[in-house]
Amino acid sequence: MNKPPVGKETFSWPVRVYWEDTDAGGIVFYANYLKFFERSRTEWLRARGINQQALREATGGMFVVGEAQVRFLKSARLDDELLVTTSLLETGRASMTIHQQALLTTTTGPRLLCEATIRAGWVNASTLKPDRIPAQILHALT
Amino acid sequence: MNKPPVGKETFSWPVRVYWEDTDAGGIVFYANYLKFFERSRTEWLRARGINQQALREATGGMFVVGEAQVRFLKSARLDDELLVTTSLLETGRASMTIHQQALLTTTTGPRLLCEATIRAGWVNASTLKPDRIPAQILHALT
Amino acid sequence: MNKPPVGKETFSWPVRVYWEDTDAGGIVFYANYLKFFERSRTEWLRARGINQQALREATGGMFVVGEAQVRFLKSARLDDELLVTTSLLETGRASMTIHQQALLTTTTGPRLLCEATIRAGWVNASTLKPDRIPAQILHALT
Amino acid sequence: MNKPPVGKETFSWPVRVYWEDTDAGGIVFYANYLKFFERSRTEWLRARGINQQALREATGGMFVVGEAQVRFLKSARLDDELLVTTSLLETGRASMTIHQQALLTTTTGPRLLCEATIRAGWVNASTLKPDRIPAQILHALT
Repeated sequence: MNKPPVGKETFSWPVRVYWEDTDAGGIVFYANYLKFFERSRTEWLRARGINQQALREATGGMFVVGEAQVRFLKSARLDDELLVTTSLLETGRASMTIHQQALLTTTTGPRLLCEATIRAGWVNASTLKPDRIPAQILHALT
Repeated sequence: MNKPPVGKETFSWPVRVYWEDTDAGGIVFYANYLKFFERSRTEWLRARGINQQALREATGGMFVVGEAQVRFLKSARLDDELLVTTSLLETGRASMTIHQQALLTTTTGPRLLCEATIRAGWVNASTLKPDRIPAQILHALT
Repeated sequence: MNKPPVGKETFSWPVRVYWEDTDAGGIVFYANYLKFFERSRTEWLRARGINQQALREATGGMFVVGEAQVRFLKSARLDDELLVTTSLLETGRASMTIHQQALLTTTTGPRLLCEATIRAGWVNASTLKPDRIPAQILHALT
Repeated sequence: MNKPPVGKETFSWPVRVYWEDTDAGGIVFYANYLKFFERSRTEWLRARGINQQALREATGGMFVVGEAQVRFLKSARLDDELLVTTSLLETGRASMTIHQQALLTTTTGPRLLCEATIRAGWVNASTLKPDRIPAQILHALT
């Protein structure tokens, strides 16, 4: 799993754990961390001026996840407060690679629960075929 | 809550409870019964020859739920087997009203867990404005 | 559908619409409004000093929804900002009835998308049998 | 990504794509493939006589996913029929590694949409600490 960039380049988004996120094991269902990661990526884009809905109407394209490597280290529970980070590792012509972490907020500091390396490709929203990431996005991200 | 029609008019669809459906209370999260009801409505339409994706491409319309009255009587748990029923109560020009039940399969027969009366309206998929239910659907349903 | 109390008694919680909330119709999937309502109820309880996880450990009880009447008036879309309100209509010995609304935040003010009347009962978390709402909760809510 | 074992060792479970599984991109939301994979793993266990709910009551343990490597190759859409496979790659004392695929059923044969390598560890359900996989499970699986 790649190392994340450090410092000011890492974006953080708070996520609270609700009933909907948990399962009968008393912990957050594993697929739901991918929801949390998506929320953080969306807010990271928004913080850089990128509104995905508007961009899709303007360009006909959207991001689709092509690969996800996820390590689930510790479990979050109901009412937990998480910080979900996003940091850009690399951009290509048609995809970008991102490192993300879900950190539990505790009185003694953040504790890593789950981390992922995600590759998201830009596709034509109708055909789902890979396409070049619009320059507007590349400028905003890098 | 309206009485369902009886006998052959009631469509049944089996649903198994998985981890994803449960919450930290050890039971199915209340919103997920609406997922089960939607699955049963879709399969009920499919059994009558109606494929919603194809119909949308052909007519530009889709069903959207306008009202749901739901009673949660008993709770389903992980691994439970349910039968989720759909029966048509009434059709109008732009909407239909359906009665649905989620029944737990037990060795002593089905036990009612949750029931709902659902009104679904037909809308233009682009504008979301109400529209007449296509004749093809009305013929298939009644 | 009951009228909500007005003014300071109504609790509001912001909810952003993410990809996970939408469906292929381009709008928020109907069951997901029940997730939004649950988040608002949980934050309303938290704002009154009630942590459900801690309370369950202390009392062995939890709230379970017994009835939901939901009207879906207009649809939310990706990236929409909602305010989800909670206001208490009535408390009994073993249940409370709540009015909730999901309002779209627009430049010309809030627009009602979805509203619900929800009855939530207090149950023993092991047996799921109805029980008296703990005095601590009743004091905090009323 | 590891190669799956072939032939009779691969378990298959049919999954239909419903509205709940899709997002505003018109395709299955990426996190939901992990739900499909979990359903297939559960049914694979059940087909080998392992009921997770009963096992937890008997042993106090449960499986928790520790790592997932997922490749999303093509997208499923509403009404699609998938086959979701599970095949055991390796078992250790406290975890097992599984290869899973989501295949679209087409008239010209199955088409690979998504595949994953999943490591699931056995944990004490109360403490969430790793524990030995019960012999009963190892016997059933290998």
